[in-house]
Amino acid sequence: MLDKKYYKESYSIEQTMKELGKKLASVQRQLQEHSIPLVITVEGWESSGKGSVIRDLIRELDQRYCHVKVLEDISKEEYPFQKALWAALPKYGQISILDRSVYSELFDHVEYPKSYIKQALEQVLRAQKTLWEDGMIFINLFLDISQKTQRHRIEKYARDPYQSLYITRRDLNQNICYEKYRPHYGEILRMAQKDYSPWIILSGEDKEQAGKKALKEVINILEEKIPQILEQKEKLAQIKEHKAITSPIIENLDLSKSLTKDEYKKKKKKLQKRAQELGLELKRRNRSAVIVFEGNDAAGKGGSIKRLTKHMDPRNTFVATTAKPTEEEYSYHYLHRFYEDFPRKGEVTVFDRSWYGRVMVERIEGFAKVAEWERAYDEMLAMEKELHDNGVIVIKYFLAISNEEQLARFQERENTPEKNYKITQEDWRNRDKWKDYLVAIDEMITRTNKEYAPWIVVEGNDKRYERVKVLETFVQAVEKALKEPENPRQLEWERENEQQE
Amino acid sequence: MLDKKYYKESYSIEQTMKELGKKLASVQRQLQEHSIPLVITVEGWESSGKGSVIRDLIRELDQRYCHVKVLEDISKEEYPFQKALWAALPKYGQISILDRSVYSELFDHVEYPKSYIKQALEQVLRAQKTLWEDGMIFINLFLDISQKTQRHRIEKYARDPYQSLYITRRDLNQNICYEKYRPHYGEILRMAQKDYSPWIILSGEDKEQAGKKALKEVINILEEKIPQILEQKEKLAQIKEHKAITSPIIENLDLSKSLTKDEYKKKKKKLQKRAQELGLELKRRNRSAVIVFEGNDAAGKGGSIKRLTKHMDPRNTFVATTAKPTEEEYSYHYLHRFYEDFPRKGEVTVFDRSWYGRVMVERIEGFAKVAEWERAYDEMLAMEKELHDNGVIVIKYFLAISNEEQLARFQERENTPEKNYKITQEDWRNRDKWKDYLVAIDEMITRTNKEYAPWIVVEGNDKRYERVKVLETFVQAVEKALKEPENPRQLEWERENEQQE
Repeated sequence: MLDKKYYKESYSIEQTMKELGKKLASVQRQLQEHSIPLVITVEGWESSGKGSVIRDLIRELDQRYCHVKVLEDISKEEYPFQKALWAALPKYGQISILDRSVYSELFDHVEYPKSYIKQALEQVLRAQKTLWEDGMIFINLFLDISQKTQRHRIEKYARDPYQSLYITRRDLNQNICYEKYRPHYGEILRMAQKDYSPWIILSGEDKEQAGKKALKEVINILEEKIPQILEQKEKLAQIKEHKAITSPIIENLDLSKSLTKDEYKKKKKKLQKRAQELGLELKRRNRSAVIVFEGNDAAGKGGSIKRLTKHMDPRNTFVATTAKPTEEEYSYHYLHRFYEDFPRKGEVTVFDRSWYGRVMVERIEGFAKVAEWERAYDEMLAMEKELHDNGVIVIKYFLAISNEEQLARFQERENTPEKNYKITQEDWRNRDKWKDYLVAIDEMITRTNKEYAPWIVVEGNDKRYERVKVLETFVQAVEKALKEPENPRQLEWERENEQQE
Repeated sequence: MLDKKYYKESYSIEQTMKELGKKLASVQRQLQEHSIPLVITVEGWESSGKGSVIRDLIRELDQRYCHVKVLEDISKEEYPFQKALWAALPKYGQISILDRSVYSELFDHVEYPKSYIKQALEQVLRAQKTLWEDGMIFINLFLDISQKTQRHRIEKYARDPYQSLYITRRDLNQNICYEKYRPHYGEILRMAQKDYSPWIILSGEDKEQAGKKALKEVINILEEKIPQILEQKEKLAQIKEHKAITSPIIENLDLSKSLTKDEYKKKKKKLQKRAQELGLELKRRNRSAVIVFEGNDAAGKGGSIKRLTKHMDPRNTFVATTAKPTEEEYSYHYLHRFYEDFPRKGEVTVFDRSWYGRVMVERIEGFAKVAEWERAYDEMLAMEKELHDNGVIVIKYFLAISNEEQLARFQERENTPEKNYKITQEDWRNRDKWKDYLVAIDEMITRTNKEYAPWIVVEGNDKRYERVKVLETFVQAVEKALKEPENPRQLEWERENEQQE
């Protein structure tokens, strides 16, 4: 009798789950229709039933547009910044379900001082805000269980040949120190709770109920957030006005600066040797650098990069070229593709054009809406700050030439067969917008020139002067950065720990 | 006097290098123009000057289309097959320069028995042949130095603060065992020497001369190979005839097979539980599986996959959907994108459509030339054999429905608002080619049904029968595979070692 009754009840929850699953599947189609990406993070105590909740969530979803990503054990060994978060993002209209998250590192370490946690959280949240403003929905689930339930499950799982696969020393350790973890979790959840990235705490005592609750909550939040996102998009699309924050930079350059052939040769040789040494020094110290090159068309970016990297070790120096985004790249936030190319520890990435295209070509050609490129200044700075705070050296070059010099170079390219491939109709069209670009360049440099990510404007009419200035300022900037403390966050933590001792 | 003479000479080699570099850059433009990808592998003794040769090679190249990839320490821990090779491939028209290679594992291990090396090489070479036939050029450079020179360099580098970064215990060990490595290298180079992937042995005694020689050899080979590739392409494009190797399969199916609701429920429940266990068993044993789903449009691939994976752990079971290739995916060999989704050890990837599109839609729509899809049968089998030989279980499903059943399902999709998104004009167009598809399906199954990668044809008119058969055969196939020796290659090696003892 008992068995039959149980079966009936479980059948009924099975039915409920199926219905909720189908409901979520229909919301998924709305997300697709409106190109809204969704990230569901599943966090919680060890053995709290995260896997089971994930299974319940995806049950009825169209798996072509929904991907489960396992973020357990994100290592900051190779990449110190939030590469894992960006790599796990869904495309527009798709869903990523994260098993554990970028928060896991913080959850796992009760010993981290509060200031470190706060700063790390700020970085995560800043990225999420950037993505939310671009229309991404974040929902975070936290599965809560009691110490007793956890103990009970660990013991049960440990005896099961399959379940025991998921039991590690960490689970047991967490159970023993449960009372230390509880306030630690509470603190993080309190700090991380944001309107653009809400946390839902679910009881994991009963796995089926947890799954049901998770489905309900996710559906509720989506029904609330989808119209909100659409309204926000609508509103932002209306904005046509832009209040410039700018100062004249390019027009005040002395483009007559030049070097003789002899000066050039002598300086270049010495500086290239030093650049080579610094590249190796970065490798030795496990530091990395991001070098951005922007500039007018034909300003000599390629030539300068070649001279800069000539003697640097090709095994830790990489040039990443930024062209028009591919179809694939267009299906993510515009910053997404750059995270892929950011350097490992000990490496240097030189960007031949960069994310600044957002406030240059995309602004001028109208590929980005006013509200989009307007907020990009802050977004890009936040990203560069993130790199800097994690020990990456950031240097940005703008190579400037005069309108006349550009014309001369374009004509030379057209008339020299081997250089012909370098000039396209698009270059000529861009040239017609010289003045618009001037406005955009001045504003870009004014707004995004920061100590942690400085712009170096290089007078480029004389190629010899230009190349030597690039080399010289690179050497100076890297030497300076290597003298500074490597990781401000790390340092603060050490200080705090010392005080505690 | 001596110094000045030396300076003059070194200036002159600098000039030669620059000229050779520019020559190579002009060949690079030819590669681009003809969309020919090039892989240059730089291998050799430790401290033989690989970095310096790479620097010389890239010196004048357009770095937007040339990338240096460091393949040192390829781990087979996560992915047992050639993921690293495929990940390092250049796009059409671009260049990858590999610092070390997929051969490195073999070079490094003098203790590997000959039979193991032979089989591993066969796999590498098979992949290269596939890529060569698609128009990729491979050039392999091996830097040779004497024991004395190596010793001398290691000692010198070890004293240099920067160069010492590249000196490891391995270097020293190699120098001590130099005489064991020499015949080992010779043997591998002899076996690996192929017309489609030639090895050039360069003396690394003098680094500048090595760079010069490398540039010359690469230019020579390219000047020989580029016309060869173009001619080959031209010739293959002419082939219009196809000699079918086929037998009637689909037409002999008994599509009336069905299950009652009760049978279905009972069987499904039991089989799903077993599938769940097997998924965990794979994880426990660190084995992986690739499950392919092909079938007529509306044959129930999505539904079958959902039932198969329903209780499997979403943290080690992934569904990869194969749609029309993106622009990015089109810029590589058609097999490239699948290597990205192949499972880690302990994981299962289910492919909702697959590489078999090459001999189905691409064949029928003419997206691939006759010679291209004709050779694809063997290419795909070679890839599946590679997976199998490295311990990956490969199972391929073809879900078949009748022409009338498809019509009924299409109509239902059109008339049901929630299913409407599942049906497109393209589906109707494909339906018009039902007979062409029948021919292609029969040939595909006839030619690519192998013991190491079997096709399971599923009668799909009755969805219940179909889903249960998928589950049932999955369980059988995985159970069978788990009883067989994990890695034939590994085993052979062990046998050989025992004999030696």
